[in-house]
Amino acid sequence: MKTLKDYIDKLNSLNFKNMYNNDFFLTWEKSDDELEAVFTVADALRYMRERNISTKVFESGLGISLFRDNSTRTRFSFASACNLLGLEVQDLDEGKSQVAHGETVRETANMISFMADVIGIRDDMYIGKGNAYMHQVVDAVKQGNADGVLEQRPTLVNLQCDIDHPTQCMADMLHIIHEFGGIENLKGKKVAMSWAYSPSYGKPLSVPQGVIGLMTRFGMDVVLAHPEGYDVMPEVEEVAKANAERSGGSFTKTNSMAEAFKDADVVYPKSWAPFAAMEKRTNLYGEGDMDGIAALEKELLAQNAEHKDWCCTEELMATTKDGKAIYLHCLPADINNVSCKDGEVEASVFDRYRTPLYKEASYKPYVIAAMIFLSKFEDPQDILKKLEERGAKRIFE
Amino acid sequence: MKTLKDYIDKLNSLNFKNMYNNDFFLTWEKSDDELEAVFTVADALRYMRERNISTKVFESGLGISLFRDNSTRTRFSFASACNLLGLEVQDLDEGKSQVAHGETVRETANMISFMADVIGIRDDMYIGKGNAYMHQVVDAVKQGNADGVLEQRPTLVNLQCDIDHPTQCMADMLHIIHEFGGIENLKGKKVAMSWAYSPSYGKPLSVPQGVIGLMTRFGMDVVLAHPEGYDVMPEVEEVAKANAERSGGSFTKTNSMAEAFKDADVVYPKSWAPFAAMEKRTNLYGEGDMDGIAALEKELLAQNAEHKDWCCTEELMATTKDGKAIYLHCLPADINNVSCKDGEVEASVFDRYRTPLYKEASYKPYVIAAMIFLSKFEDPQDILKKLEERGAKRIFE
Amino acid sequence: MKTLKDYIDKLNSLNFKNMYNNDFFLTWEKSDDELEAVFTVADALRYMRERNISTKVFESGLGISLFRDNSTRTRFSFASACNLLGLEVQDLDEGKSQVAHGETVRETANMISFMADVIGIRDDMYIGKGNAYMHQVVDAVKQGNADGVLEQRPTLVNLQCDIDHPTQCMADMLHIIHEFGGIENLKGKKVAMSWAYSPSYGKPLSVPQGVIGLMTRFGMDVVLAHPEGYDVMPEVEEVAKANAERSGGSFTKTNSMAEAFKDADVVYPKSWAPFAAMEKRTNLYGEGDMDGIAALEKELLAQNAEHKDWCCTEELMATTKDGKAIYLHCLPADINNVSCKDGEVEASVFDRYRTPLYKEASYKPYVIAAMIFLSKFEDPQDILKKLEERGAKRIFE
Repeated sequence: MKTLKDYIDKLNSLNFKNMYNNDFFLTWEKSDDELEAVFTVADALRYMRERNISTKVFESGLGISLFRDNSTRTRFSFASACNLLGLEVQDLDEGKSQVAHGETVRETANMISFMADVIGIRDDMYIGKGNAYMHQVVDAVKQGNADGVLEQRPTLVNLQCDIDHPTQCMADMLHIIHEFGGIENLKGKKVAMSWAYSPSYGKPLSVPQGVIGLMTRFGMDVVLAHPEGYDVMPEVEEVAKANAERSGGSFTKTNSMAEAFKDADVVYPKSWAPFAAMEKRTNLYGEGDMDGIAALEKELLAQNAEHKDWCCTEELMATTKDGKAIYLHCLPADINNVSCKDGEVEASVFDRYRTPLYKEASYKPYVIAAMIFLSKFEDPQDILKKLEERGAKRIFE
Repeated sequence: MKTLKDYIDKLNSLNFKNMYNNDFFLTWEKSDDELEAVFTVADALRYMRERNISTKVFESGLGISLFRDNSTRTRFSFASACNLLGLEVQDLDEGKSQVAHGETVRETANMISFMADVIGIRDDMYIGKGNAYMHQVVDAVKQGNADGVLEQRPTLVNLQCDIDHPTQCMADMLHIIHEFGGIENLKGKKVAMSWAYSPSYGKPLSVPQGVIGLMTRFGMDVVLAHPEGYDVMPEVEEVAKANAERSGGSFTKTNSMAEAFKDADVVYPKSWAPFAAMEKRTNLYGEGDMDGIAALEKELLAQNAEHKDWCCTEELMATTKDGKAIYLHCLPADINNVSCKDGEVEASVFDRYRTPLYKEASYKPYVIAAMIFLSKFEDPQDILKKLEERGAKRIFE
Repeated sequence: MKTLKDYIDKLNSLNFKNMYNNDFFLTWEKSDDELEAVFTVADALRYMRERNISTKVFESGLGISLFRDNSTRTRFSFASACNLLGLEVQDLDEGKSQVAHGETVRETANMISFMADVIGIRDDMYIGKGNAYMHQVVDAVKQGNADGVLEQRPTLVNLQCDIDHPTQCMADMLHIIHEFGGIENLKGKKVAMSWAYSPSYGKPLSVPQGVIGLMTRFGMDVVLAHPEGYDVMPEVEEVAKANAERSGGSFTKTNSMAEAFKDADVVYPKSWAPFAAMEKRTNLYGEGDMDGIAALEKELLAQNAEHKDWCCTEELMATTKDGKAIYLHCLPADINNVSCKDGEVEASVFDRYRTPLYKEASYKPYVIAAMIFLSKFEDPQDILKKLEERGAKRIFE
């Protein structure tokens, strides 16, 4: 694509009218056209930024962020996306707030949203909680807007929940779209979403779930590989199966990393915790059973340690398509002898893919900005055109 | 009011010239005209935002916030107000700063204000301290501006002190002005500012004090109700008395919640700590007497527990004017069987008033923005007119 | 200087082409012309702000800050500088991030920089670490930009490292340039950079090092005074010597505060820790030797206590040039009987210089903004001219 008009033409061919004034929870709640609209707007915003054209569409307005887990890259991606569009980030730091005093989600959601155009939430720690919480927030602000409490209806962007990590997986996807030269070239490509060993435990399931829930969309052959017992949420496997059937691809499972990597075009070796264990942990937290949690941690670390051979080695990489599969990771990775003794990937593999990995990450701010953009404008094609005509410079010249 | 001109005409009828280049500490330091100017500008700013007209009057500049107590809604209200006008919030987090190293208030105030147009402070915990601290800050930055250290003179907005909570009470007031259809309709209305039971202790006095100090201004009949021993600052009661006398309303006290609620047009049931106890606590902190503080806490909780019957029940609400008094609260409220077993209000009462309560809160960002606006512009009418003429859109279209 | 043209003419006479797309680590890595360019742009930006001319050159973009030590004034100075130019500050709070999980500096630097135009870092605690870390960050983002990961190349501003504190010392210097009526009047002025007693220990060396490394540039006679054993980094003393030789000034050392103050035009009495002790402490931290650190602290406090007579007294001030030397300090100062019993300066001295000290500090936001400006624009003269022509108002009127 060479001109902004190409992106606009592409958008004209897609049906994404339901994204207007809507939220982004899970990729599989969106149509293929809607996902393509996100990719297209993301590319268009990047195109403009690279040409020093300001895409500031808000003169004022807040982007509220709520991170219930530590975050660097998603935090900065959200901040970058908001800033690119003209929104100022205001972080809801629950420690500094009165939220703990027993007020309801509905109340807090309204109280922080009087001038909020976007709310970005990461809440990925407890099975059955994060996504549900986001829905509570959205229901509250929609009601608030309907009641005349809020002048605008803030859009939710799911910055990672217990089920999906849509901004991450959409960025991963946009990266491989660019690597393969277009979304139409994904058909028939083999993707290995594989568990890998990490010395830490309890890593979220949202990335593998998000990957199998998204990459099965475009005719790809997705293999989910993990040691026995490291299952992901069964509901998401069902989503992946249905996607594959619809898109003409496939979704299979294996307990062999080697089998998954064999002839793969894309590999995504990454640690996660067994779904059942995370569910158990959620219940233990609910019961305040700290001894139980400590025991579970010990048990899970021991279980992990039995699978140190699940590592993305040079040897394994050599078995992929032409020995040159695209290596994906949401970062940070556990790198052998760098961040830990034994980890998810050998240092030489990681090093060879460092630059593409960083590029992969670089799509996230644009993906988030595109999600916001598509929610806020009924006719985004028109807005893109007008922004180009306006010709305001990002950096003065 | 239908057009911006109506708000401008209203402002033309008021004398608020002393607000220019000035601060907002306590409502009773302002004239009636000045308070009306705040309400009018708040409504005008909201009018413009609802019509997608940008009210960004600062191309750059900082709004400094200093919260010495946890805060969600005031924090976000201040951030929203600053953002609406174009100021970027920079939070002075005393934990991350070197303030503790023994530097003076005067020095810190200047060091953070080189590009500050506004300073918002919450400091409500210790009797005799918060308001005094704000004055120290203002004296320092006025001096700094006079000395050529600061190019501009930052405006202080009191975000809650030991004496008053002006942004809260002005928002409460603007809400009832809208509910009653105009400030001129307040005369003769009965307001019950009543203590209510809470299982926590040490809640600030600034809300009840702010309410009796403000609502006695416009001819209303204000009743302050609390159990014996839960007195507020006597100086503020004097203010309320003088206000009532001047405005043709009344200020009375009772130890009966039922008496206060009887035929009330507005009820504000809310817990607070006895003034004398808070003064004692301030002294104990000054002496570093931690045992004394623990003993005081125990004593106050026991004292509170004797008054669990001070609750805003359906039964009590039925005794108000037509059984339909406006129920006010600064939020979050202690709701029976929701946030605690016994609290300030029954759940069914709270639920019925939820939407108006949220609307009440929604005025706060505009009230803060109006206070800033009136301090920064000598002729705000002219600026409002020019903003409409400029016609910049808040959201691009 | 009276018009913006005067500043532009000054810039036209200087060679600072290497500052474009470059970083600011140490003042002695910059040429005299480059330093003068910073002073000139700082004055020009202040000139415009005082005349309500917006210098917003970024429509969007982030200024990343990373403070590895507490900070008030540098934090607010950086925020002010970014805001003045249109950048939004995003703080990398390492506690809230995943940085601790073992990811590399290279990775973090890229992950936070997708839309970063500037990175400001304070990392001054450990000898041999802070400046090296900043270089790692810069190498990473330069590589990221070259690799197409980052669309722009973020500029580093050293907000204090183990070697230099360039934004502080440049602000100090700009203050004395104004006091003496021009950079050309500095020749032959005597500057006493003197150790002074403080009841705390481990104060950074970057200020005295920065001062002797900068003030020896313009023909001044710089005397470094400290008790035996309180040496600064020998490499920086070599820099000072070479500077003095080249500029026609001098750099001398003494163990007598009185000798340093005698006939001085400028005095800078300030505590710091001995270089060798800080090096030792760095090693102890590296070894995790907490007992060793505690013992060292005790030893250093005892050593400090032997030099309580190193205080900037009225008596000493009387011995300076006409008894009226300019008194400099980076603030906050340890003031006798104010912030501590015995400290760096007598209260009456400090009070007399309070306003000029605050003015000294007021230059820092402009110095930082100038460093950013000179890195971002190849022809800053042209940009300044166009900003004046654009005539956008900082505050609407």
